Amino acid sequence: MADPTMDVPCRHLKLTNGDIIKLYETAGPFDKLRLNPQGYDVEQGIPKRREKWVAARRAAGDKTPTQMYYARQGIITEEMQFVAMRENMTAEFVRTELALGRAIIPANINHLELEPMIIGRNFLVKINANIGNSSLASSIEEEVEKMRWATKWGADTVMDLSTGKNIHATREHIIRNAPVPIGTVPIYQALEKVKGKAEDLNIDIFLETLVEQAEQGVDYFTIHAGVLLKYIPLTAKRITGIVSRGGSIMAKWCLAHHQENFLYTHFADICEVMKKYDVSFSLGDGLRPGSTADANDAAQFAELKTLGELTEIAWQHNVQTMIEGPGHVPMHLIQENMDLQLKICHEAPFYTLGPLVTDIAPGYDHITSAIGAAMIGSMGTAMLCYVTPKEHLGLPDKDDVKEGVITYKIAAHAADLAKNHPGARERDDALSKARFEFRWEDQFELSLDPDTARAYHDQTLPQDGMKKAHFCSMCGPHFCSMNLTHQVRALAQGGAGADDQSDSAAIAEVQAAALAQDDDAIAAGMAAKADEFKAKGSEIYVAQEN
Amino acid sequence: MADPTMDVPCRHLKLTNGDIIKLYETAGPFDKLRLNPQGYDVEQGIPKRREKWVAARRAAGDKTPTQMYYARQGIITEEMQFVAMRENMTAEFVRTELALGRAIIPANINHLELEPMIIGRNFLVKINANIGNSSLASSIEEEVEKMRWATKWGADTVMDLSTGKNIHATREHIIRNAPVPIGTVPIYQALEKVKGKAEDLNIDIFLETLVEQAEQGVDYFTIHAGVLLKYIPLTAKRITGIVSRGGSIMAKWCLAHHQENFLYTHFADICEVMKKYDVSFSLGDGLRPGSTADANDAAQFAELKTLGELTEIAWQHNVQTMIEGPGHVPMHLIQENMDLQLKICHEAPFYTLGPLVTDIAPGYDHITSAIGAAMIGSMGTAMLCYVTPKEHLGLPDKDDVKEGVITYKIAAHAADLAKNHPGARERDDALSKARFEFRWEDQFELSLDPDTARAYHDQTLPQDGMKKAHFCSMCGPHFCSMNLTHQVRALAQGGAGADDQSDSAAIAEVQAAALAQDDDAIAAGMAAKADEFKAKGSEIYVAQEN
Repeated sequence: MADPTMDVPCRHLKLTNGDIIKLYETAGPFDKLRLNPQGYDVEQGIPKRREKWVAARRAAGDKTPTQMYYARQGIITEEMQFVAMRENMTAEFVRTELALGRAIIPANINHLELEPMIIGRNFLVKINANIGNSSLASSIEEEVEKMRWATKWGADTVMDLSTGKNIHATREHIIRNAPVPIGTVPIYQALEKVKGKAEDLNIDIFLETLVEQAEQGVDYFTIHAGVLLKYIPLTAKRITGIVSRGGSIMAKWCLAHHQENFLYTHFADICEVMKKYDVSFSLGDGLRPGSTADANDAAQFAELKTLGELTEIAWQHNVQTMIEGPGHVPMHLIQENMDLQLKICHEAPFYTLGPLVTDIAPGYDHITSAIGAAMIGSMGTAMLCYVTPKEHLGLPDKDDVKEGVITYKIAAHAADLAKNHPGARERDDALSKARFEFRWEDQFELSLDPDTARAYHDQTLPQDGMKKAHFCSMCGPHFCSMNLTHQVRALAQGGAGADDQSDSAAIAEVQAAALAQDDDAIAAGMAAKADEFKAKGSEIYVAQEN
Repeated sequence: MADPTMDVPCRHLKLTNGDIIKLYETAGPFDKLRLNPQGYDVEQGIPKRREKWVAARRAAGDKTPTQMYYARQGIITEEMQFVAMRENMTAEFVRTELALGRAIIPANINHLELEPMIIGRNFLVKINANIGNSSLASSIEEEVEKMRWATKWGADTVMDLSTGKNIHATREHIIRNAPVPIGTVPIYQALEKVKGKAEDLNIDIFLETLVEQAEQGVDYFTIHAGVLLKYIPLTAKRITGIVSRGGSIMAKWCLAHHQENFLYTHFADICEVMKKYDVSFSLGDGLRPGSTADANDAAQFAELKTLGELTEIAWQHNVQTMIEGPGHVPMHLIQENMDLQLKICHEAPFYTLGPLVTDIAPGYDHITSAIGAAMIGSMGTAMLCYVTPKEHLGLPDKDDVKEGVITYKIAAHAADLAKNHPGARERDDALSKARFEFRWEDQFELSLDPDTARAYHDQTLPQDGMKKAHFCSMCGPHFCSMNLTHQVRALAQGGAGADDQSDSAAIAEVQAAALAQDDDAIAAGMAAKADEFKAKGSEIYVAQEN
């Protein structure tokens, strides 16, 4: 394609056997700078890919420049074309899904650096990584670096949850350097503006904060408009109460004023801001369960019902919308979450935090939550919000961000496989073939984390020659089952004859007989040539001892 | 109980709020030696708890001293009583499950050090940790220490997969120090006896090896008797062929001789050895899929059918039996594995390796497999064989063993929760309460890995005072949702009145109204006292800044 702005990011991995595998790429221009990240100027920001696209709409005076609005008008935008190519779908399919509200393309008209992506259950399952300082730790540079780091490993969107100093400047730097959509929870900054006193919050301060962040280019806002006054008592008997920061802030406001949540009563005003910039809603689940004991309770599902009503209002304003979900949910209660969300929220995309399937493993909650995430992803959740090993314990550092992202790429990809998503198997099959053929370098490069795979292998067998060895230290040279299989296949082929075609025919015949469990036919097909093989020495493989 | 041999291991965790939580314990006498492991003599072995139990049976001249035999005779053994107490079930229920073949108590009459445990889908889901040297790495001491280490973190059984030097001596040291059942794959040692030439194996060498290991006290043997000659061609078109070491050895033997697998043709002879020592079968899945592409194929299910036939033969000999399962299976194909296994193998316990739900994450296969393990565990698999981060890449070290065990404790416990297993929730709820009440030390101690949880927390907040702080560095003092919830509850209670009982009544009334979504009733129930709260200063909590 001649237009460089439509040059969809994609990693072309050339394998040592000549095959080329195309991998979905989230790292943006950073990927090319991998070897020399120092050569890049964070102050300058990355190229503004969407500049002309958005300029044309501004010139046309579009009042509701949202992807949902265009989709409903039958218009295919550049963003839709872009994601269609990225996902190997037709642009018309993308448009239809957007028009129906089943998918969103978070793409603030002021985030010109964005490489558009789509969130919806008929597309690849996406993952989000949270970054952001707390009042206790980290700097602007660290947070920008965490965003780059997260997208390098595969984060599809990044949420900046900063609550400490320099919120505005930190966000500005992140957006100007972000190839992926950036989400925020505006109530955090609004709360800072009223010096941390939740009861001093009001709709004016909130709307002012929305405009400030929308102007910068934030692509989606988490807004806890479903935490209604009447639902708060439903959390009274919970083991862990309210565990969403935004949810607890709004609950405090509601009780302090004994008034209805102003995000709910002023929801139409909020929509007016959102649609002007095409900021997408991520309707927050302020009452999500914070322990498996609290899962699927009255508070959680009451709020979900309200989120369904708000979805309809948002759609009336042509504002793209997704719905946030739990949280902590034991495995047997996950399906109900998905079923209810699809029904109540009219198939708007679901965006869940895990869920964690047990509470007993702080320090390993990337794993407890990946189990739930993979399951709910396979059931139809469109985006999975990662959890790092530091969840419940502290602010994640760079290593934690990477661990969380890789773990969630596993969950998302496992879900794609389970959904039989077109093409999802290709990478698994390529890696399995490389493994079987002892192409170690290909196996490393095809893996989600080549550095770690290589390092683990090299821990016991660092020599270059071992990258071609037909074993690793796990089983050693004599017990490698894959190596033995090659011997088995050689035996089977030796038995069937020299000619390749007759080999295949013979194998097919034996296979058919075996399927039919026809012992006589198999015995005939196997045409014993055992002695011949033994005479050859039986050992095809000679171990490369070091 | 007066008899010290019936003193069932259990960790009584005393929490700072006075509660006592009882936790299932696998570490045996080592647990008491935790603080001084140097004071323990590995050469001496741990106490022989079962000495008198077994001696009585020998004195009685029992010819088939298997737990299945006794169970079918209506006899409740000490082992059954022991596991009944350990699992909070009746001994009669344990006996019935054993008699039906739905559960096994792997307990070789020569493993007198064993603390009996049970494997069956109506009991707690168990996990196995593999240890063992390969020809490339590790010593006897290291392997014994890995066994102690694995049981410290929660391994219910340990398989010694050694293939290198000193197989016999390594195994002897492991068994004499093992409070948990030890499993092996005898074909590995048999292969060493014929200098690694699979085609030189025969039933005599195999039976001799079985007797040697049974005499030492091995509790269960993985035997690949289902790899039939006629099934081998079914693996010809697989991406990863045969990935079980034992399976590939037997496949090579079958093809080299063009004869049926001698483990299959001599299965009755093998049963004769097993029943004499009460060694349990772990019928190996030599044709399990080694990639998601090969999952649920003709080879895998053909072998499963044979394992079902062998189960019936084993049961005719009163030999306890479980069935090994895959492997690599995408999520949507897992349920079929469980359904077929239960049906074909007459509800004999299933013992699966993962399964891994994607192939693209070498270095993280403890996670790819924990997803599948948790799922298949919730469906009825009785024991989960762990996978470490080094899977496919190298021999696991101590850190990998711990990571694998903790990850699988997560999967097994999540499965127990999903099955609504009696009492499984207690630990989750205790930890969640500790979390909500900022009892940090209790939260650490209740977690699967207290050391890691504490270390992660202390990374940013090492001061002693922070163990009582109402926040951590993840959100900082002003944004801790749990802290905010306490404020919300104080607000709600301030509104409802001073008396505790009337509080509860008022909350219940509001809750009922909210469930009914009756706005008027809620408004009445909420009896606004907002001004009063504001007058108090609104801030109940004062942050402990450092």
